[in-house]
Amino acid sequence: MDVDKKYFSNITTRERAIFEGAISMGALFHQFVGTPVNKDSKESLEKAMEESLNLQPAIEKVEVKIRFDKLEESMTEFDYTSLTGDMLDVKIHTKVDDVAAIIRIEFIEELNYPLMYVEDIND
Amino acid sequence: MDVDKKYFSNITTRERAIFEGAISMGALFHQFVGTPVNKDSKESLEKAMEESLNLQPAIEKVEVKIRFDKLEESMTEFDYTSLTGDMLDVKIHTKVDDVAAIIRIEFIEELNYPLMYVEDIND
Amino acid sequence: MDVDKKYFSNITTRERAIFEGAISMGALFHQFVGTPVNKDSKESLEKAMEESLNLQPAIEKVEVKIRFDKLEESMTEFDYTSLTGDMLDVKIHTKVDDVAAIIRIEFIEELNYPLMYVEDIND
Amino acid sequence: MDVDKKYFSNITTRERAIFEGAISMGALFHQFVGTPVNKDSKESLEKAMEESLNLQPAIEKVEVKIRFDKLEESMTEFDYTSLTGDMLDVKIHTKVDDVAAIIRIEFIEELNYPLMYVEDIND
Repeated sequence: MDVDKKYFSNITTRERAIFEGAISMGALFHQFVGTPVNKDSKESLEKAMEESLNLQPAIEKVEVKIRFDKLEESMTEFDYTSLTGDMLDVKIHTKVDDVAAIIRIEFIEELNYPLMYVEDIND
Repeated sequence: MDVDKKYFSNITTRERAIFEGAISMGALFHQFVGTPVNKDSKESLEKAMEESLNLQPAIEKVEVKIRFDKLEESMTEFDYTSLTGDMLDVKIHTKVDDVAAIIRIEFIEELNYPLMYVEDIND
Repeated sequence: MDVDKKYFSNITTRERAIFEGAISMGALFHQFVGTPVNKDSKESLEKAMEESLNLQPAIEKVEVKIRFDKLEESMTEFDYTSLTGDMLDVKIHTKVDDVAAIIRIEFIEELNYPLMYVEDIND
Repeated sequence: MDVDKKYFSNITTRERAIFEGAISMGALFHQFVGTPVNKDSKESLEKAMEESLNLQPAIEKVEVKIRFDKLEESMTEFDYTSLTGDMLDVKIHTKVDDVAAIIRIEFIEELNYPLMYVEDIND
């Protein structure tokens, strides 16, 4: 089956690059929020997030930073906390044909909200 | 803050409608896959999935069907199973200004994969 | 196969009642934390959490309250937030033979931690 | 606050060792099921699962094996799949005072079910 022809001929290459990155960003957030984390386990969690989302269609690279300041703010009596959206600073790079896009999530204080948006797109 | 102006002026209305629906579809899959489910709890789970994802930006309506045939296929000795992607048949309707889009997930046997794609988009 | 005999003869009935409730409490937390929620969708989410966890072995009843005060505290510009552990007030009732237990999670301010413990056990 | 005295004096040391391991096993399953995975990302995911759950109270060591045979069985056209319970072979070691327990999950074909049980407990 030609998946692209059958399911994606109604959208442009640019739209496809945005679509695939957005799926993976929604996936990353809702898969990993809630995971126990502290400064010692931060790195292995970042790596697993990067490598797992990197498998999805059109994903070129995933860069995950778990914000240490936000991690410390929510620290508990038991020396770890649960991953929350405000700790996430992530860039997902997608590529479809000649279009490259970067989908970003970062916490915006003014909105009290981890905003997902298209940080860059070239065509 | 004018969020749309600051963060979304680099993409078209059509692209935004696709972006927001794709995020919510990735979110839905990765939030709820793994949930214990059987034919008795199916309906309340579908409703919670619909109402929770409906809260996200630009989402007009969410229609979730958990496929009974796939549910039964994976039934265990304990009369329930875990929600998997192949059970999901979901339509997420988005609206941004005058553009309406439907993002769909459905299991494609030939790919052995629950495919997410843009089922319809009007502009 | 006699599952109880093969896999659970090394623990007491009391221990089994605690074991099954603890599994379901860990499951509930990590399945649903991250879900988009506000005051309008709270009820359907509580119901789905109750009905899905109720399917697991030895679970008699699940009572979920999403704390409105904590929900409001973390409200965002977009009129919803993500479910976090501090919003959870949950009782899971288990029964194994003649032993009944209640496993509880509630947020303890002094620990800044949603503590899981055995609230009651009768034998 | 003396958490142990206030919240755990109604259960034995043995019961506490079982309780804490069961919570972490339920957590592990429901946090990570659904994660994109293939043979290349398997190792980083196993490590993140081990390090994150290791942070929880009373957990001494976590050993995660994602079963390669089950992973391959569910492989898709896109060279990855979603983590499911049948791929999990996990041992969680807990220690409370002088009691050491091992909580196990493994897929039991006869039940078509990933069973969690107390593999070993010494006191």
